[in-house]
Amino acid sequence: MPDAPMVLLLACPDAVGIVAAVSGFLSDRDGFIVDSQQYADLETGRFFMRVAFVASGPRFPATIEALRADFERVGARFGMDWSLADGSLPRVVIAVSKMGHCLNDLLHRWSIGALPVEIVGVVSNHEDMRRLTEWHGLPFCYLPVTTATREAQEAVIAEMMADADFLVLARYMQVLSPELSAVLAGRCINIHHSFLPSFKGAKPYHRAHMLGVKLIGATAHYVTSDLDEGPIIEQDVARVDHRASVDDMIAIGRDVEAQVLARAVTWQAERRILRNGGKTVVFR
Amino acid sequence: MPDAPMVLLLACPDAVGIVAAVSGFLSDRDGFIVDSQQYADLETGRFFMRVAFVASGPRFPATIEALRADFERVGARFGMDWSLADGSLPRVVIAVSKMGHCLNDLLHRWSIGALPVEIVGVVSNHEDMRRLTEWHGLPFCYLPVTTATREAQEAVIAEMMADADFLVLARYMQVLSPELSAVLAGRCINIHHSFLPSFKGAKPYHRAHMLGVKLIGATAHYVTSDLDEGPIIEQDVARVDHRASVDDMIAIGRDVEAQVLARAVTWQAERRILRNGGKTVVFR
Amino acid sequence: MPDAPMVLLLACPDAVGIVAAVSGFLSDRDGFIVDSQQYADLETGRFFMRVAFVASGPRFPATIEALRADFERVGARFGMDWSLADGSLPRVVIAVSKMGHCLNDLLHRWSIGALPVEIVGVVSNHEDMRRLTEWHGLPFCYLPVTTATREAQEAVIAEMMADADFLVLARYMQVLSPELSAVLAGRCINIHHSFLPSFKGAKPYHRAHMLGVKLIGATAHYVTSDLDEGPIIEQDVARVDHRASVDDMIAIGRDVEAQVLARAVTWQAERRILRNGGKTVVFR
Amino acid sequence: MPDAPMVLLLACPDAVGIVAAVSGFLSDRDGFIVDSQQYADLETGRFFMRVAFVASGPRFPATIEALRADFERVGARFGMDWSLADGSLPRVVIAVSKMGHCLNDLLHRWSIGALPVEIVGVVSNHEDMRRLTEWHGLPFCYLPVTTATREAQEAVIAEMMADADFLVLARYMQVLSPELSAVLAGRCINIHHSFLPSFKGAKPYHRAHMLGVKLIGATAHYVTSDLDEGPIIEQDVARVDHRASVDDMIAIGRDVEAQVLARAVTWQAERRILRNGGKTVVFR
Repeated sequence: MPDAPMVLLLACPDAVGIVAAVSGFLSDRDGFIVDSQQYADLETGRFFMRVAFVASGPRFPATIEALRADFERVGARFGMDWSLADGSLPRVVIAVSKMGHCLNDLLHRWSIGALPVEIVGVVSNHEDMRRLTEWHGLPFCYLPVTTATREAQEAVIAEMMADADFLVLARYMQVLSPELSAVLAGRCINIHHSFLPSFKGAKPYHRAHMLGVKLIGATAHYVTSDLDEGPIIEQDVARVDHRASVDDMIAIGRDVEAQVLARAVTWQAERRILRNGGKTVVFR
Repeated sequence: MPDAPMVLLLACPDAVGIVAAVSGFLSDRDGFIVDSQQYADLETGRFFMRVAFVASGPRFPATIEALRADFERVGARFGMDWSLADGSLPRVVIAVSKMGHCLNDLLHRWSIGALPVEIVGVVSNHEDMRRLTEWHGLPFCYLPVTTATREAQEAVIAEMMADADFLVLARYMQVLSPELSAVLAGRCINIHHSFLPSFKGAKPYHRAHMLGVKLIGATAHYVTSDLDEGPIIEQDVARVDHRASVDDMIAIGRDVEAQVLARAVTWQAERRILRNGGKTVVFR
Repeated sequence: MPDAPMVLLLACPDAVGIVAAVSGFLSDRDGFIVDSQQYADLETGRFFMRVAFVASGPRFPATIEALRADFERVGARFGMDWSLADGSLPRVVIAVSKMGHCLNDLLHRWSIGALPVEIVGVVSNHEDMRRLTEWHGLPFCYLPVTTATREAQEAVIAEMMADADFLVLARYMQVLSPELSAVLAGRCINIHHSFLPSFKGAKPYHRAHMLGVKLIGATAHYVTSDLDEGPIIEQDVARVDHRASVDDMIAIGRDVEAQVLARAVTWQAERRILRNGGKTVVFR
Repeated sequence: MPDAPMVLLLACPDAVGIVAAVSGFLSDRDGFIVDSQQYADLETGRFFMRVAFVASGPRFPATIEALRADFERVGARFGMDWSLADGSLPRVVIAVSKMGHCLNDLLHRWSIGALPVEIVGVVSNHEDMRRLTEWHGLPFCYLPVTTATREAQEAVIAEMMADADFLVLARYMQVLSPELSAVLAGRCINIHHSFLPSFKGAKPYHRAHMLGVKLIGATAHYVTSDLDEGPIIEQDVARVDHRASVDDMIAIGRDVEAQVLARAVTWQAERRILRNGGKTVVFR
């Protein structure tokens, strides 16, 4: 079992005694809580919790599987949706099209140890990013997409994802099918180049420029079958003024996009995000 | 003529020699340029300029009217829309309903000399803000609005505005008629409690909460006959997370609204804003 | 006992089982945890926790005193520094000198129910803020400070604080004596008009202007006997450029000061702050 | 002569008629002003101006040298320090040590056309960044620095700079000698990993962590012989809380450093910066 903290993520109907049950469970097994966060949604009555912990004594189970088996009873008692991850790096696939600023940012962070993931590979419907990807020693999978090939290409992605934890759309300019979106629910993060719900759809910077907004933004969200509609994970903005052309906005937006996506990917990797209906709970 | 800088604002088709003509005009009359900003909109071919200047020699005209008469020729030569203001404080009317955070912010700034306006008075469709207004020694005009009285009430506002420079809607929860909006074009500033174009219309914080956005915002804009659609003057945002209730968002939003509105009012008072179609040029 | 959540704040050496003991203690007494946050300082080995909870069943003690007596055993077992507050509003004294922007901001928030405190009164070494204070229906205590009167004046403040929870220095331009600072340790919040540690001491905006910084800031901190040195609670900044005069910086800084102080006072009122040596833990 | 705008930068004692003289000079030669900004420092009586313009008629001189010769008379009349640049890309040398986040950010921007410079090469006292540099097709110059070799190494840099416009220290962990600093006055930009004047010198993140600040920052400044003391060009900050370890601060700071440096380099490349004593005027 790795030395990094294990993470328990759970959601259930709110009730007296959940925290006591979870922390008692760990304490009884010499589990040392490194970080714990919780949130009770008063509107829906749902309770959310993230507990990061390490083994610190002889009573700790020898395997993560044993620990999971032990926890079944607690989970069942409170009707929890729960997952228990050991401290290994999550396996990530990145999809990109022609614009490489988000990909470059993610790969650079990863290369200096600042992005806690294992990158399985990069897929793209263009060849442009092959050289950057391969320079980092990562496999690049070219999947040109046409109406005729779309289904076959998505099958390749689905196959890669069978052995990966999540997919990052780092300015991947293809819409996933409803089927693949459903398969990857909660496991696929997209970066949209606007401050949602403003400027859904195509060419957001052009429309922001036409409207004369004074801030432009970017939004990282889970992909659902509704385009640009999935649960929002993170957003940020940058200031522009009347002098900013569309190209200026695109250039300024690149920095915001890269940073917003990097934060979302990091939180997903650290298992800090839970979905709450169409929204997210992010335990930062 | 007052000691504060005079301000020339102009817009015209772009051409060689505009800056030279304007600065030469002032130089020839011992006008000393304190600040000058310009912007050429390459898409529309419009040129915008703001020049702040003071008299600094014997050749300066004795009155602002004389200076305006002199400038007619320059304005005509380049087909300018222009205005020339002496340094006196603009006269402002503030409209408010029940929520006083923006009004309190504006009046406090004004009372310590940090808002360069003369406040003519406060109008409201409720009595709630009378005490605050009168404590500041300002007239409070109660104009209850019903379907029957709306027209008469707007007539009172229009009459006040005949002798005022601009109107500030500081969380005034009544929609102005298209007629009054047209009369006050470019002279009426509203604060909308969302980051436009997101969440136009009623209850923006409720909708922001439902969607689970990670930033909430406010927008100051000129009022037009299209609700929440006028040229944007200023916007800003504040961070929220999953724990923020609607009431929390309203509370956080109050600070953003007050600051965004105060900036827009200050810029309007300092004659820093020009309209460029449905957008604004703000010479900050 | 009031309906608002009770708050348990604690700090102790880190150990296995603290969370389990605390949450078990509450669960056993039908205490329903509304919010819980914790932090383990790996450098010092100290553990910090804030638990907000409400009574939700028949086993809950009838009085807060009874609950405190019950908790003694848990506190002793882990060597905790702890406090347990019922949900009543904390009693606050505000000190001010001549500049009223922070005071006006705090009083306005309080008047609209956005600052969860009971204001005992305002003390000042000048008469300037009497009118604003009394307009809000609050007692104003004029305490002119000279070398001769300083000791007597501090005695008055100390007496007021005997029956109050904390003191807010809202641009109070007098240095508290080491004795009073010691008495009020962790109970006195100051707003310093710079981004500490930059520009400690007098005239920070003048020095920021001389240096040509591109951002100015404000810092809320606990008062200690070392001037401008106490544990930092909150900081924020605003952008300036080369055109900003000292007066512009002072004007821009006012907004930052007021907001930073309001956040610090709110967190103190909600019992979200723990001291960790010369630093703070803020459970936002 | 290139198609990009030419830029005139000037500083002189303030006087009536400067703008008129400059704009008249250009207008008389069919120079079309694309952008013009100015600033009068009321404290020192200095006037600063940046004019970007293009040729738009037959009277425009055939060469930049001819235009410069023509302008001599205007410059002399007002006692101007001035420079007139054609629209070619400035030639830049980048120095780096072991940490590559700023270098990677600059090279990526450059590779996608978002950094308007020609990169002459990268120099370093370590080999770590050779691979990244050469992948971008740029020369890498390894200059190991010891007490014995320092003088020789600086001679190499000085030689490279003889044919370059400015030098960027992108986390170059060697202090330049006073002699080289003097030679490169106004032509060498450093990124310091703190919000100056806080935490000058070594290990700023460690000291920020010790003090418990709530925001960390970065500062781009011109290098002078005083370490971390040169005129500030740009600053920015990012929020941290009590949970941030030194390593977290370093990671968060990397993003701020890279963005602040990129902005400073862009402004220098676009000739937007003038020095005003120990401060800068930045015409953004």
